[in-house]
Amino acid sequence: MVRTRIIGGTVIPVSERGLWYASGHVVVERGRIVSVGPGEGPSTPEDEVVDARGKYILPGFVNAHGHAAMTLLRGYADDLPLMDWLQKKIWPVEHGLTGEDIYWGTLLAIVEMIENGTTAFADMYFHMDRVAEAVAEAGTRAVLCRGIIGSGPDEGSRAIEESRAFVNRWHRAEDGRITATLGPHAPYTCPPQVLKRVAEVSAQLDVAVQIHLSETRSEVNQMMSAYGKSPVAVCAENGLFERPTLAAHCVHLDDSDIDLLRRFGVHVSHNPGSNLKLGSGVAPLPELLRRNVVVGLGTDGAASNNNLDLLEEIRLAATLHKGVHQDPVIVDADTALALGTREGARALFLEEGLGTLKPGAPADLIIMEAGSPHVLPLYNPISQVVYAARSGDVTDVMCDGRWLLRNREHQTLDRERILYHAERIAARFAP
Amino acid sequence: MVRTRIIGGTVIPVSERGLWYASGHVVVERGRIVSVGPGEGPSTPEDEVVDARGKYILPGFVNAHGHAAMTLLRGYADDLPLMDWLQKKIWPVEHGLTGEDIYWGTLLAIVEMIENGTTAFADMYFHMDRVAEAVAEAGTRAVLCRGIIGSGPDEGSRAIEESRAFVNRWHRAEDGRITATLGPHAPYTCPPQVLKRVAEVSAQLDVAVQIHLSETRSEVNQMMSAYGKSPVAVCAENGLFERPTLAAHCVHLDDSDIDLLRRFGVHVSHNPGSNLKLGSGVAPLPELLRRNVVVGLGTDGAASNNNLDLLEEIRLAATLHKGVHQDPVIVDADTALALGTREGARALFLEEGLGTLKPGAPADLIIMEAGSPHVLPLYNPISQVVYAARSGDVTDVMCDGRWLLRNREHQTLDRERILYHAERIAARFAP
Repeated sequence: MVRTRIIGGTVIPVSERGLWYASGHVVVERGRIVSVGPGEGPSTPEDEVVDARGKYILPGFVNAHGHAAMTLLRGYADDLPLMDWLQKKIWPVEHGLTGEDIYWGTLLAIVEMIENGTTAFADMYFHMDRVAEAVAEAGTRAVLCRGIIGSGPDEGSRAIEESRAFVNRWHRAEDGRITATLGPHAPYTCPPQVLKRVAEVSAQLDVAVQIHLSETRSEVNQMMSAYGKSPVAVCAENGLFERPTLAAHCVHLDDSDIDLLRRFGVHVSHNPGSNLKLGSGVAPLPELLRRNVVVGLGTDGAASNNNLDLLEEIRLAATLHKGVHQDPVIVDADTALALGTREGARALFLEEGLGTLKPGAPADLIIMEAGSPHVLPLYNPISQVVYAARSGDVTDVMCDGRWLLRNREHQTLDRERILYHAERIAARFAP
Repeated sequence: MVRTRIIGGTVIPVSERGLWYASGHVVVERGRIVSVGPGEGPSTPEDEVVDARGKYILPGFVNAHGHAAMTLLRGYADDLPLMDWLQKKIWPVEHGLTGEDIYWGTLLAIVEMIENGTTAFADMYFHMDRVAEAVAEAGTRAVLCRGIIGSGPDEGSRAIEESRAFVNRWHRAEDGRITATLGPHAPYTCPPQVLKRVAEVSAQLDVAVQIHLSETRSEVNQMMSAYGKSPVAVCAENGLFERPTLAAHCVHLDDSDIDLLRRFGVHVSHNPGSNLKLGSGVAPLPELLRRNVVVGLGTDGAASNNNLDLLEEIRLAATLHKGVHQDPVIVDADTALALGTREGARALFLEEGLGTLKPGAPADLIIMEAGSPHVLPLYNPISQVVYAARSGDVTDVMCDGRWLLRNREHQTLDRERILYHAERIAARFAP
């Protein structure tokens, strides 16, 4: 069995705060990390040796919330009031998306994410079989769900049954790289009986749940008018939080909401870039962390961000809250890097060890150029990656022990073909 | 005389809101733009023809505030309270910087800025003759000043006289690419008599003034205790604003401060990345723009940002205020791109036309890759550059009609040599 031994680079394992090896190694065998540390590590004559001198080696980024195929609508409509943007621009086009469109749109997202160092992502959309096919081909890791909107009479039930079929086909497929969840869109689009039913079915299927939660002030107001309760309280009351739940956004939370999230062990995807751009607000990340809520970072869809650059979200997580709270130590670089890797993997209910470089963990890792002017000189590699590096510094990406990108060349996907199809499809929507 | 004709790219002139040409041209002759528009433009057989198909052509970015040589301290100390960071980490090292250190540190900054598409920058530091030499060699455009700190008895006068000598040597040097200003550091480090003297000398020399202003809440409190007036009011009262003034930061302004800035025509450098990272706060950009204050964007020094990536500042200017004000239309992509180019040039008191692509303007322009996954598909190039592109997409940079970067290769600087010296110097400071 051939092992891969990556040597000579600065290793940032993200397994412990502040840990790094100036010239370290990572050894990978059968899809798992078997050794990490200083020096060259244990060698065998058959090792594939990768020279990472002048580079960083770190866990792949984990994108904890998004809608991959919305890359097709990247920049389609910007700088509009939220409801105009959604109702007049995004929804009409989404309504016309076919399974084939979504397949290519998802591949466009995955090509972008591989290039920026993302090895695992969450996705909520529709035509999810085509999404899963794209993930299978790309070799990346994903946590997928069919978005459930329950506004119409039978709409919720139909979407739940579709989700059940999807879970049965794809949960733990591709050597476990694909996991499936249920995906009630939000409490304002899923009435209580739908939330209850989702909780039941997710228990039957033994899968987790992803939901949008308390993204905007108007959502909270709407729920308060309808139920006299916050979106978080409505989910709690209808049994959703009895299930492992990943809640995206969580911008507008009061103290009792945060308490509910903590008590029920709800995980949160913090999406600072999308929350800023759509004018939703700034989530209480420092308070969530203080109360030990598990938080990952997400880009959201490319129609609202407008890229899938998780390193931008890591940097924002480390800087935005400092500024808003006027406190330069409130979220530090170590914490932000962990949110974008280890904690993101936890938030997605992935296997323990994922999002770190430690023996036994699945080998999801990236190599980044460390010798360019914008990342020199070097004093602290964790600071450098979080505050100075850019996603274009990523040169190599491995997921589950398999190279997806080597020296910036895709190993699993045909980039030109994907770009061709994405542009062909987008031509239909051009204003 | 050989002309350069750049054709086939998407031209974003930033001369009018929302203007772009899907397949346009820019023709450059004797350092000036002579034609911009759709199609291939007027040609002569001797033209140097540059094929920019699949690329964007736009004005170079203008970095309206920084301390270039602080690249030497990039990531040297992060995640500390502001005064610990300054007093225990930054100042002791700065104290030991020699002219040679500053020369190489400035070149490191310029190499980085050329690679990220910045063609003009403001700089306030010391050993400014060495800074000007670096700018002269690099071929970039810069607005330079010796930082004046007037806390000690004669310290202010000495620094003012040094500044006078610097202005006499370098103002309008290098075909006007270098302009010099005076640089009183801040009202809390320059007592009133120093501010008054700076105003007098800047009038004698006919140069503008750069100053840090109202960066932190504690600065405002300190000035209120000392003078019963805000930092802005102290500058106004001491005659500084009778001179053309560029004020950096302007985070903590009350209504009457903004009124003073507007009435005196003070220009502002908005530095959102630095203000977030240092925990200073969020400047009232929307209100400054509403009152027609001229605003540019700056990175600040790399010790506090930690890179010199103006496109990050453009994106932050377009998104941060939307989130903080919960208003998705408060600063749009057009506005943010203008702040990072045309308005930045105005803020720096540069020649009219700079920061745009229009006939007669000096040819400061960049070409960016437009065919990568993270910027496809394309609906609106202005949105795409502001919200999705990254500075690593820059492939070519021209300043004053001269190529500084061609196909990502430096034309004026020896990148390896600069990186070597920067690392050599930084080794002295390693903890």
